[in-house]
Amino acid sequence: MAKSKFEYVRSFETDDTCLRNCYIVVRLDGRNFHKFAEQHQFAKPNDDRALGLMSRSARSVMEELEDIIISYGQSDEFSFVFKKTSTWFKRRASKFMTHVASQFSSSYVFYWKEFFGEQPLLFPPGFDGRVVLYPTNRNLRDYLSWRQADCHINNLYNTVFWTLVQKGGLTTTQAEDRLKGTLASDKNEILFSEFDINYNNESALHRKGTALIWEKRDETVSKRMKLPNEEERDVPVTRSRRKVEAYHCDIIGDQFWEEHPDILEDDNC
Amino acid sequence: MAKSKFEYVRSFETDDTCLRNCYIVVRLDGRNFHKFAEQHQFAKPNDDRALGLMSRSARSVMEELEDIIISYGQSDEFSFVFKKTSTWFKRRASKFMTHVASQFSSSYVFYWKEFFGEQPLLFPPGFDGRVVLYPTNRNLRDYLSWRQADCHINNLYNTVFWTLVQKGGLTTTQAEDRLKGTLASDKNEILFSEFDINYNNESALHRKGTALIWEKRDETVSKRMKLPNEEERDVPVTRSRRKVEAYHCDIIGDQFWEEHPDILEDDNC
Amino acid sequence: MAKSKFEYVRSFETDDTCLRNCYIVVRLDGRNFHKFAEQHQFAKPNDDRALGLMSRSARSVMEELEDIIISYGQSDEFSFVFKKTSTWFKRRASKFMTHVASQFSSSYVFYWKEFFGEQPLLFPPGFDGRVVLYPTNRNLRDYLSWRQADCHINNLYNTVFWTLVQKGGLTTTQAEDRLKGTLASDKNEILFSEFDINYNNESALHRKGTALIWEKRDETVSKRMKLPNEEERDVPVTRSRRKVEAYHCDIIGDQFWEEHPDILEDDNC
Amino acid sequence: MAKSKFEYVRSFETDDTCLRNCYIVVRLDGRNFHKFAEQHQFAKPNDDRALGLMSRSARSVMEELEDIIISYGQSDEFSFVFKKTSTWFKRRASKFMTHVASQFSSSYVFYWKEFFGEQPLLFPPGFDGRVVLYPTNRNLRDYLSWRQADCHINNLYNTVFWTLVQKGGLTTTQAEDRLKGTLASDKNEILFSEFDINYNNESALHRKGTALIWEKRDETVSKRMKLPNEEERDVPVTRSRRKVEAYHCDIIGDQFWEEHPDILEDDNC
Repeated sequence: MAKSKFEYVRSFETDDTCLRNCYIVVRLDGRNFHKFAEQHQFAKPNDDRALGLMSRSARSVMEELEDIIISYGQSDEFSFVFKKTSTWFKRRASKFMTHVASQFSSSYVFYWKEFFGEQPLLFPPGFDGRVVLYPTNRNLRDYLSWRQADCHINNLYNTVFWTLVQKGGLTTTQAEDRLKGTLASDKNEILFSEFDINYNNESALHRKGTALIWEKRDETVSKRMKLPNEEERDVPVTRSRRKVEAYHCDIIGDQFWEEHPDILEDDNC
Repeated sequence: MAKSKFEYVRSFETDDTCLRNCYIVVRLDGRNFHKFAEQHQFAKPNDDRALGLMSRSARSVMEELEDIIISYGQSDEFSFVFKKTSTWFKRRASKFMTHVASQFSSSYVFYWKEFFGEQPLLFPPGFDGRVVLYPTNRNLRDYLSWRQADCHINNLYNTVFWTLVQKGGLTTTQAEDRLKGTLASDKNEILFSEFDINYNNESALHRKGTALIWEKRDETVSKRMKLPNEEERDVPVTRSRRKVEAYHCDIIGDQFWEEHPDILEDDNC
Repeated sequence: MAKSKFEYVRSFETDDTCLRNCYIVVRLDGRNFHKFAEQHQFAKPNDDRALGLMSRSARSVMEELEDIIISYGQSDEFSFVFKKTSTWFKRRASKFMTHVASQFSSSYVFYWKEFFGEQPLLFPPGFDGRVVLYPTNRNLRDYLSWRQADCHINNLYNTVFWTLVQKGGLTTTQAEDRLKGTLASDKNEILFSEFDINYNNESALHRKGTALIWEKRDETVSKRMKLPNEEERDVPVTRSRRKVEAYHCDIIGDQFWEEHPDILEDDNC
Repeated sequence: MAKSKFEYVRSFETDDTCLRNCYIVVRLDGRNFHKFAEQHQFAKPNDDRALGLMSRSARSVMEELEDIIISYGQSDEFSFVFKKTSTWFKRRASKFMTHVASQFSSSYVFYWKEFFGEQPLLFPPGFDGRVVLYPTNRNLRDYLSWRQADCHINNLYNTVFWTLVQKGGLTTTQAEDRLKGTLASDKNEILFSEFDINYNNESALHRKGTALIWEKRDETVSKRMKLPNEEERDVPVTRSRRKVEAYHCDIIGDQFWEEHPDILEDDNC
């Protein structure tokens, strides 16, 4: 049983190193989540428990893996952006995408109860992943804008669709017909004039999705200490800690990026 | 919020199609499982609950995904072999490895309770994955032999090591020193002469690992039927069903493959 | 001018190792050869000088580079097959394709005069290349069959087309119209009934293209020697030498391969 | 001879598209040029005929292929930089590197006579190539700096070495020993104090290599024209033409790039 005789098979492995100095993006998508949502009675058009669980799982990915600077999710997808200069696992694409897919999936099951309580998870869900490289800040921001624009388009459609069904009494087929060929402005108008709903006042979580970033927060804890020439007593101690924070705001325009200048690295290097 | 303006970012995705007419192997490895095993008090040298959970998760992967003809696992790793002619997801490597990593990981958490009962899972575990291609049956069998030879070498070492500690009263450092430079024959001899253990009688699960393959089994169920000119009654109905079966046997030699001639495809095509 | 400061740029190079145990095929195609042929007054439908120069250049590639077991060419293309077990330049795809493209192109200019005599080469021609891997003998033979079937289809068409023009007095547009929608049998019939040409008696070089393989040939040279107890005299010395030989025969059927059993390696390894 | 039966072999070709928005660099290196130089009696340490032929061939590559913005060469190597936004041949790496290798090689033979006159080319030379991607201007300039620093280091060494041999009367072994462990300053000192040579006054072509770029030049030609109400006469006509121009200057510092601001594209896109 000489292992060495077989070890030549290792030489069939191929190198999949990501080009240096590019952002590495891993995007996950739920497998058959349309069916998964039905079987678990997700609320329509958005289920806040499901969205909360997605974000919780994404936070677990950011905390467990290295070098993720921002992640963005909506519906049953989540994208993770690794910094340009990351050398984690020698930048091997397979390591990045499988670690993200694995950590996200195990977290989804692990934290299910926190969001769905006693409602049982019927079977283990699946997520697939891919790696895409972006050389510049412009390309990366356009990628994230693409996903947020997708969120907007889908959520506006779904909001009107389910309002027509749930409040307007239409069948799903009738609602589909009604929306065929309508523009964004038409959809806003239906919501406003027929249901007195201003789309812009709808939940930012649903309209904008979720961006997770690292932020330094001062944290003050009480520590029992003995200072020189004093009695032992509780002393407030403040430390700066890095935490994952969630934003449900526009990330297409410049404001978000100007307010968080540390997320992106400089293009000129 | 025109999505189309950003959609050019899709063109940064690269094609990672696997070469046709080759076996596609995805191997998963536990992330930091040494620590994971300690934190969850895995029995030494082998924890049958943990091994059972690995196999259960691998079975879930085989049942949920397409075209896996055999999988082989040992310790905290599992390899999945997709057939040469698979066209699942157009043979895109990223799809294969992330689906496997995701399904395995979510299953590991999902089925934890079946194997560990009330002992809680402390945090969501991670597994990384990679894809390797093998053009011929000889190469594929050598790959599987490599993994089983690895199982043998590690299990023999671990068996002697923990016997020296648990029954021989050595510290882990003393056991390590004792085994430094020993050959397989020396280890067998220690077990036999000092502890009256014949290694070949040890559990096949531990010595050989687990191979999972698809087998057709006849299954007879009782169905209530009304046949012509008869009363309605229970009739035994036999169907052939494909099921995942586990083997803990040698897969290096020819016997296993001769007994299961349908696993491998013909080289000459 | 510290070189070391810039050397990090080497890490942007990516690995392009070809999967082991597969045939590596490099195919070259002439760049804008339609125009090149016109500018150099190539005979229609086939120019034997040009075909001879292609083969001469291919022979130079086989002799200068390592591990090529067969090459096949027709029209302005040539394919080179490297053996499955080649480890030339660590199987890096870029090395294979650029060496072939370079050696072929410099040879094409270098040997031009041997085939075109005093007719000048007007400008340096270009050839592009690509690498394709084939895991089995069946796949490789089907690749070569694909190219020879292409040769047949094009040559039959061109033979009838230019016969209609050159002997039948049709304009090129009329010939094109005449052939629209015709099958191989129709084309054979036109040649036979209208021009008394049996296509199968046409030049094998044109119908079958050119396969180049290595063959051992005994070569007898006369050497002046002094044998013991003899006068010095000319002695015939026979050595076995490996030479590139050309075939213009069918390589789709089994006969060629049965007659040259050493070209292909065994599938079962 | 149904071609379609074999056409499945095309599906074994893999996609090798270069990541968008990155500079594509193809570097060629002479194959066995040490030996080639000896066999063709190249002058030591630099042969201006050979360097001229390299540059002439590089110019042919720039003129024949698309989207090359700068090329840089020294000794027996030449690098070609394609613009970030090039979509030539869908950015397929194999097309870029084989076209460059082929055009350069055929040009080298084609233009040999222009530089070597009646001295014959003994055999067709070979050049290999590779593709490397650079995401930013900084990375690209560092790549070019790396090559120019290499030129400097080699040329300084070769200049001293051959001066010691040719003027100092040392054997090549003695010259080698003399230079072992010397720094750049030592080498400059040997040239200056022993041979009265100021290295900085040596030929810029040898010290800096050759950068080729596109430049717009006004070109005035005389055209015979008939203007209204005038006799027909020769009229000077000035047109702006794009031509490849050669520079033998420092490209590591900022000056060259500031003087030619059109070569590089903006990083922020």
